Amino acid sequence: MRAAAKRIEPYAHRTPVFTSGSVDRQIGTRVFLKCENFQKGGAFKFRGACNAVFSLSDAMAQRGVVTHSSGNHGTALALAARLRDIPAYVVMPSDAPDAKQSAVRDFGGRITFCEPTLAARESTAEQVIAETGAQLIHPYDDYRIVAGQATAGLEFHEQTPDLDVVFAPVGGGGLASGTALANAAVKPDCQLVLGEPERADDAYRSLKAGRIIPADNPKTIADGLRTSLGQRTFHVLRHHVSEVVLVSEQEIIEAMRWIWSRVKIIIEPSSAVAVAAAIRCRDHLAGRRVGIILSGGNVDLDRLPWQSG
Amino acid sequence: MRAAAKRIEPYAHRTPVFTSGSVDRQIGTRVFLKCENFQKGGAFKFRGACNAVFSLSDAMAQRGVVTHSSGNHGTALALAARLRDIPAYVVMPSDAPDAKQSAVRDFGGRITFCEPTLAARESTAEQVIAETGAQLIHPYDDYRIVAGQATAGLEFHEQTPDLDVVFAPVGGGGLASGTALANAAVKPDCQLVLGEPERADDAYRSLKAGRIIPADNPKTIADGLRTSLGQRTFHVLRHHVSEVVLVSEQEIIEAMRWIWSRVKIIIEPSSAVAVAAAIRCRDHLAGRRVGIILSGGNVDLDRLPWQSG
Repeated sequence: MRAAAKRIEPYAHRTPVFTSGSVDRQIGTRVFLKCENFQKGGAFKFRGACNAVFSLSDAMAQRGVVTHSSGNHGTALALAARLRDIPAYVVMPSDAPDAKQSAVRDFGGRITFCEPTLAARESTAEQVIAETGAQLIHPYDDYRIVAGQATAGLEFHEQTPDLDVVFAPVGGGGLASGTALANAAVKPDCQLVLGEPERADDAYRSLKAGRIIPADNPKTIADGLRTSLGQRTFHVLRHHVSEVVLVSEQEIIEAMRWIWSRVKIIIEPSSAVAVAAAIRCRDHLAGRRVGIILSGGNVDLDRLPWQSG
Repeated sequence: MRAAAKRIEPYAHRTPVFTSGSVDRQIGTRVFLKCENFQKGGAFKFRGACNAVFSLSDAMAQRGVVTHSSGNHGTALALAARLRDIPAYVVMPSDAPDAKQSAVRDFGGRITFCEPTLAARESTAEQVIAETGAQLIHPYDDYRIVAGQATAGLEFHEQTPDLDVVFAPVGGGGLASGTALANAAVKPDCQLVLGEPERADDAYRSLKAGRIIPADNPKTIADGLRTSLGQRTFHVLRHHVSEVVLVSEQEIIEAMRWIWSRVKIIIEPSSAVAVAAAIRCRDHLAGRRVGIILSGGNVDLDRLPWQSG
């Protein structure tokens, strides 16, 4: 984690921590927003991707990296690879939105299209690996990624001493488990509360059951949180998380709009999940110093979730 | 100006200065964004309103303040008055959008409705003054307001030494003339370039002609810039501005969307006018340290200008 922080320091933004009177009043206590929406590539994902890419030996690195995530991780990996001047291969379904394709391309990523199924994505990635010898970089179930994401939490504690509780969203668990490890390392009495969409509640159910129960093609507006926990992230979260708070689609949309309108910053639905979770918990937060990790700010500006039609 | 800075310091935010690799690449030099969209009330207007309200003697203050601006100045005045615990009367046309009404009401402003004409607004404000003895606080043609707005520029130079040129939008000229005076006081060799919508080009024409030529009911998306220069702001700008750059509605919309999508912050069309002006001037900016004042972030999130219909 410390090594990751040092490794990515020349490349990643030390994102600011925002405060807002409106937010304090709404949540009923002092609230600090860690703005990973201002991170390079528009999301915390760059931290993990950058750590993974710069962890590779020169020999491995020169063959490049590959992923079949077409979301923020794909973009982040392309950007990190460009910084190391190595190829990034991103496997994408042929129906991926233009915005995602151009985000990857803008950062120099090489796109290979495939059928829009998980099986096709995995087999296409295997094929790219066979042809190029590139390293597969999993979007979250990889300790290099987790260590990279942990640097957001490390920074947060440096910038904002004495946080009593941190809210973060949970999807595949990269940010969640990274934040758990950061808390454990530097502020062990700081509680970690995860926000998760009701409609993609695999972390809630898995942590309750003590085994991974993957979500089955969940439909939530929080597109970054449709993935399910991996072995590694589940393992970390089992030992470190006190609570998962489920929030409805309506709560996500309202929280997102509220941050846009009051704080004047752009956050994506996944970030709003953590905000909505904090709003849900407001009755238990009085007098505590509350941190919220705003995970990213990549949204389709042509279609906002509070706009009908 | 210095007195204003001291007077408002306990109340106003010292807004951050943002930088962005994307913005630097697009403008072709090092660019610094002074984020008045993060100011209280969502715009620089709070600075002037706060300075005016806290400049009043106790005897005058207790009778309250009044304005017939229903935009950011109305909101800012209500907020400043609440901080001094005095009444703020805001005269508004009966067809003012709900969002503007509730912004004023949220800050404790007392709304008096009138017919939607300038004559009705002025006569209604006169009536409020006759009944209450409240002080009329003009949105820009008032040296207390200009001095308050100047504090944004003072801060900008403190936060970002050696700016070679500052871009600001011009409407009634409060921010523009305040920034001109701030430059003159602390960085006299720093050029001030004003951005103005082609469709509301009164400052461009007035400064060229050497006399005030008001705009006639201009139609621009930059709702904060539909007003025309006043005597005081014209006087200051005549002596201090090197250039007014006109930008089209299309350029405003593109600049606004570009900042949203790349910087992940919410700016209103008036702010985008200054950004669009800087983009226009990019060929002349290489190697210079460029500041842009992002004047505000109050937008109707239900209808974004790049969305048709």
